Amino acid sequence: MVTKEEILKAIAPDLEKIETALQQNFQSYVPFVNEVSRHILFAGGKRLRPLLMVLSARLCGKETDPRAYRLSVLFEYLHAATLLHDDVVDQAEFRRGRKAAHHLWGNQAVILVGDFLYSRAIRIAVEEGNMDVLDVISRTTTLMSEGEILQLLNLDNFSLDEDGYYEVIYRKTAVLLSAACEVGAIYAERNHTERELLKKFGEYLGYAFQITDDLLDYTGASKETGKDVGTDFKEGKVTLPFILAAAEASYEDRKRLVELLRDGEPTPQKFEETCQLMAKYRAFEKTKEKARFFVEKALEILANFEESPTRNLLEKIAQFILVRKV
Amino acid sequence: MVTKEEILKAIAPDLEKIETALQQNFQSYVPFVNEVSRHILFAGGKRLRPLLMVLSARLCGKETDPRAYRLSVLFEYLHAATLLHDDVVDQAEFRRGRKAAHHLWGNQAVILVGDFLYSRAIRIAVEEGNMDVLDVISRTTTLMSEGEILQLLNLDNFSLDEDGYYEVIYRKTAVLLSAACEVGAIYAERNHTERELLKKFGEYLGYAFQITDDLLDYTGASKETGKDVGTDFKEGKVTLPFILAAAEASYEDRKRLVELLRDGEPTPQKFEETCQLMAKYRAFEKTKEKARFFVEKALEILANFEESPTRNLLEKIAQFILVRKV
Repeated sequence: MVTKEEILKAIAPDLEKIETALQQNFQSYVPFVNEVSRHILFAGGKRLRPLLMVLSARLCGKETDPRAYRLSVLFEYLHAATLLHDDVVDQAEFRRGRKAAHHLWGNQAVILVGDFLYSRAIRIAVEEGNMDVLDVISRTTTLMSEGEILQLLNLDNFSLDEDGYYEVIYRKTAVLLSAACEVGAIYAERNHTERELLKKFGEYLGYAFQITDDLLDYTGASKETGKDVGTDFKEGKVTLPFILAAAEASYEDRKRLVELLRDGEPTPQKFEETCQLMAKYRAFEKTKEKARFFVEKALEILANFEESPTRNLLEKIAQFILVRKV
Repeated sequence: MVTKEEILKAIAPDLEKIETALQQNFQSYVPFVNEVSRHILFAGGKRLRPLLMVLSARLCGKETDPRAYRLSVLFEYLHAATLLHDDVVDQAEFRRGRKAAHHLWGNQAVILVGDFLYSRAIRIAVEEGNMDVLDVISRTTTLMSEGEILQLLNLDNFSLDEDGYYEVIYRKTAVLLSAACEVGAIYAERNHTERELLKKFGEYLGYAFQITDDLLDYTGASKETGKDVGTDFKEGKVTLPFILAAAEASYEDRKRLVELLRDGEPTPQKFEETCQLMAKYRAFEKTKEKARFFVEKALEILANFEESPTRNLLEKIAQFILVRKV
């Protein structure tokens, strides 16, 4: 089985260069902006998105240079901007084990620093001077903002089905991972077959990633994930474990699940009851099977590329999604 | 003296085309996004920014076509996105005479629709496919987000001086008007002298515009402006009338002004007292003189262009800033 240590060792040289580029490219002349940006940017993020861009470029045969790392960080800035705007949106108490930014600085500042990081991301894409990259980025950000809104609107839509859920997570998560991989191919000047393949690879990876995230929100441990467990439950957010449980549940159990999720005063006891009801219908196993399905699809795509250490590493990253606890 | 009716008549044909383009280019497949966008986009905005782009292009000898109007609306979308994020920021009760969006839909939705409009703006610039345009837009949005943050940080900085104030309003207002004019020149393929001139023209116009806005927040009438009068006062926002009064005031009067602006419980009486203290030091006249100074600078720039109906119209728009009440 693939281990975290194994992956971390393989990506260490890239991560180091990504961290340097992250440090170098977000600076504002307003010190406060740097403070908030640093809080969100250097709070133990996995750098998955920049890493995917860099590895995708390498998979396409392009050796990565400082320009590539610089370009890659725009995906982390976009991601950070989303997290900042999502902090307000989600009212999440913890974000990667630290106090959520809006508790430290207030909604106003947090929104504006999100805007700043978003602008920096666009600026980096413009400085790269590649219209194809800009095309991908601008499509992506539009889809992402719609996705966040869809998620908000679906907060108490208890009849959201599996397809509706995929639509939300496509926009919320998959499209950015997809864009990172696609831009890797563009950077490597592989604008046809490889570009399409990597775009799809990132998308499948994104589905698997978000499904696992939503699963861990029920089954993870707060200490390990650094996030509150049960956040989605508290917010009444409809995610795949609920959908898969509700689809199989008896009339009574379904009614109770909706009641629990809708409840204005969530308690640990109610969370526990919800988990038990979901477990009764094997919702967690089934959710994991769905994640595995998308990982398999991602691996199938990679099989189109020649074997190489980079392909091998991307395969391990895809497989790791299924075993990760964080 | 230049009248509103005179200007409105001259700009009517352009405005109509701008309105059409505004309608056509913001559509989301999420109906709720359209609802919020429509609320902010079609609430009686003056369309100053798209208009400036279109007129700048025409001043450079480029006849304006559908593509130009399409490009021009990105400036309105950017402006609307700022207003939406500013709604949360400012807690303003009214915005153009309507309920502020966050009172109708909550902070979360409003932030996200702001993000959507921002993305649409970038998308339009990308679809235009001109790197110079993208360069201007991406610089502008970075400066704007820093400007909003600076303004927030300066909320209770009662030692903010005139230069500090100009720095804030450059980023908050002038840079977007400047970008609209500059992009007009780029669109007309006048990338050298005219581009620099129009960039400066827009900047001066922006200073004059924001200074007048800040003046009207003290001297305007709520019915006419559709905004709360005294909003800046209530928020303790340091603007030019305060700065110019404080610079001349006796020790006692200055102390009182700071007290009034800092006061956690602003009342109409305290607002009245503030206005009287400012009037005592001729702060409103002096603020207006500053606005006039920037309008003069803008007119000097226009003198570099050959006389034409378009130049004449831009001159009138610049002059109108000084007499407008809205």
